[in-house]
Amino acid sequence: MERALGLARKGEGWTAPNPMVGAVIVKDGQIVGEGFHQKAGTPHAEVHALAMARDQAKGAAVYVTLEPCCHYGRTPPCTEALIRAGVAKVVVAMEDPNPKVAGGGIRQLREAGIEVVTGVLEREAQVLNEVFVKHVTLHRPFLALKSAVTLDGKTASRTGSSQWITGKEARELAHKLRHRYDAILVGIGTVLADNPQLTTRIPGLKNPLRVVIDSSLRVPLDARVLDTKTGPTWVFTAQGNSPQAESLREKGVDVIPCPGPGGKVDLDAVIQILYEKGITGVLIEGGAEITGAFFDRQLADKFYIFVAPKLIGSHLAPGLIGGCGISGMKDAVFLEDLSLEKVGQDFLFVGYPKFNRIT
Amino acid sequence: MERALGLARKGEGWTAPNPMVGAVIVKDGQIVGEGFHQKAGTPHAEVHALAMARDQAKGAAVYVTLEPCCHYGRTPPCTEALIRAGVAKVVVAMEDPNPKVAGGGIRQLREAGIEVVTGVLEREAQVLNEVFVKHVTLHRPFLALKSAVTLDGKTASRTGSSQWITGKEARELAHKLRHRYDAILVGIGTVLADNPQLTTRIPGLKNPLRVVIDSSLRVPLDARVLDTKTGPTWVFTAQGNSPQAESLREKGVDVIPCPGPGGKVDLDAVIQILYEKGITGVLIEGGAEITGAFFDRQLADKFYIFVAPKLIGSHLAPGLIGGCGISGMKDAVFLEDLSLEKVGQDFLFVGYPKFNRIT
Repeated sequence: MERALGLARKGEGWTAPNPMVGAVIVKDGQIVGEGFHQKAGTPHAEVHALAMARDQAKGAAVYVTLEPCCHYGRTPPCTEALIRAGVAKVVVAMEDPNPKVAGGGIRQLREAGIEVVTGVLEREAQVLNEVFVKHVTLHRPFLALKSAVTLDGKTASRTGSSQWITGKEARELAHKLRHRYDAILVGIGTVLADNPQLTTRIPGLKNPLRVVIDSSLRVPLDARVLDTKTGPTWVFTAQGNSPQAESLREKGVDVIPCPGPGGKVDLDAVIQILYEKGITGVLIEGGAEITGAFFDRQLADKFYIFVAPKLIGSHLAPGLIGGCGISGMKDAVFLEDLSLEKVGQDFLFVGYPKFNRIT
Repeated sequence: MERALGLARKGEGWTAPNPMVGAVIVKDGQIVGEGFHQKAGTPHAEVHALAMARDQAKGAAVYVTLEPCCHYGRTPPCTEALIRAGVAKVVVAMEDPNPKVAGGGIRQLREAGIEVVTGVLEREAQVLNEVFVKHVTLHRPFLALKSAVTLDGKTASRTGSSQWITGKEARELAHKLRHRYDAILVGIGTVLADNPQLTTRIPGLKNPLRVVIDSSLRVPLDARVLDTKTGPTWVFTAQGNSPQAESLREKGVDVIPCPGPGGKVDLDAVIQILYEKGITGVLIEGGAEITGAFFDRQLADKFYIFVAPKLIGSHLAPGLIGGCGISGMKDAVFLEDLSLEKVGQDFLFVGYPKFNRIT
């Protein structure tokens, strides 16, 4: 199963809206077939593995990281292929949370007389496909917030100087993170301050969709994030009918009206629209304002926080999270399953926020 | 030498203004004597070890963490005792930076025909006595800043709620830290917000001197930090002749006038006065204002930063370091020799700030 998980991970960044899946077929202690899901619309992991195993699949054991599908999507159901190949046993890491499957695949296999074992390395499989799982169960994209701060929690000095908080290794890892998500989201503040490209800039990795939240449509026409040659850019604004909106559309930028209270973009509506457009995971790289807006709405599934061993000082220097924040310490948002990794001179904390949903 | 360093550390918190020193005497592969310096005014480590070794010191090797003293202080010079005991060899971890010694002890031993080896585990010995070394070479106390922040760099929520940022284990370790320093320093803001006792609260550990920076003498007469039964308290103020000052003096509190520009306490003068009164090391536990004032003056030798895996949010929530802070990222203050330790659910970063002294 570990090998199957490793195979699955090879599809990282490419499979959305599908999950990453890996499969290994074992006969008489030998691996006779293996494969992984490479891209939505192409064959599933089991199909690749069966094609490699050919006749040897008969009576073999199949290790697969996700319950085989039992429905006709863009490809035929894998359960049928497994039954037809005559495998003896299927070991599954986790059930498919997709309501179209949800145990139905396992049932079909069992009904066909195949032995099915479930829950092997389940936690690893759940983490691997955390974006897919949230997307199909919550009906909204998985929202990951990424930021780089100093040890005193600053993302820039009081003068706005921010290049660079972290070292080369951390910045490269941050670029790799972009590849894992369908979209990167920033606020207009970040565009105006840093004029970022928001591309992955690593050969072989994809450039995700770029999403800019720009209530008053202040984005300059020559902003690098609008360079649609490197990929699509969507600008959500409260002012969708202005001349500026027209100019942006002429450049090939998608301007999406999404007005909310106070002349601001309605973030909940943005999330809904992203979901409807098939975005499964968003990496939010906004500054304090955007991060604060998501934090206050308890809209965050994961935090990537790079911490540099530096100090900046001053209450005027921007911090990680703006907004209203929490009030009493009992409501402080804990990061669970926290992992800590040294990246060059810096530290990367990764955790899952536990919002206090009662208050 | 490792054993000698371990012995030296037993004196931690008790030896000031003297350094911690350990000594081990070895003869024919056997430890025949050992000791450590326990308290200023009492015998040095070498004297304890020689007393234990008695006749066996003759021809033995002595491992000592600091160059033996060669001057008459409150106790006679150790060099004479070593020469008189007829030891064959002295292994020294580091030279004594005290200008009254500074190589003189080693010279005396060599002139007496004793073999002297230096620099064994020198770095460990330097770190062990970092407070002593700074004190005797810079002629000011060693200044350590301690704080507890969330991952987004906050020491409290926007409403001032701060109990507790860190867990039990981190708070206990913070109390232990107090024992290592001669004095704890806070600003009046911390006294008014948290009404702390600033005691060590651990049996067998000492309560350091408490120092409060209180420009306008706003400290309430019933503040817990003024309870002189648990130890002395010094209040530095710009208003040393007010009726409030008299009331404090009646409670046994030392009110020290130290006026600076703008009706504020002159921090540089505070440091000078602390030095003159024999304080070798100060643990600054102030809030953002005090920490910012020291940071902006580049007056900080060490940072202890406890980081809790929590998020608070809001720019109105106080951060680790107030003041002016740095301007361009190139002037960000690096923490060198950074160590990271997990303490319960929290993380402790310890490092030495490298201020950019050119700008």
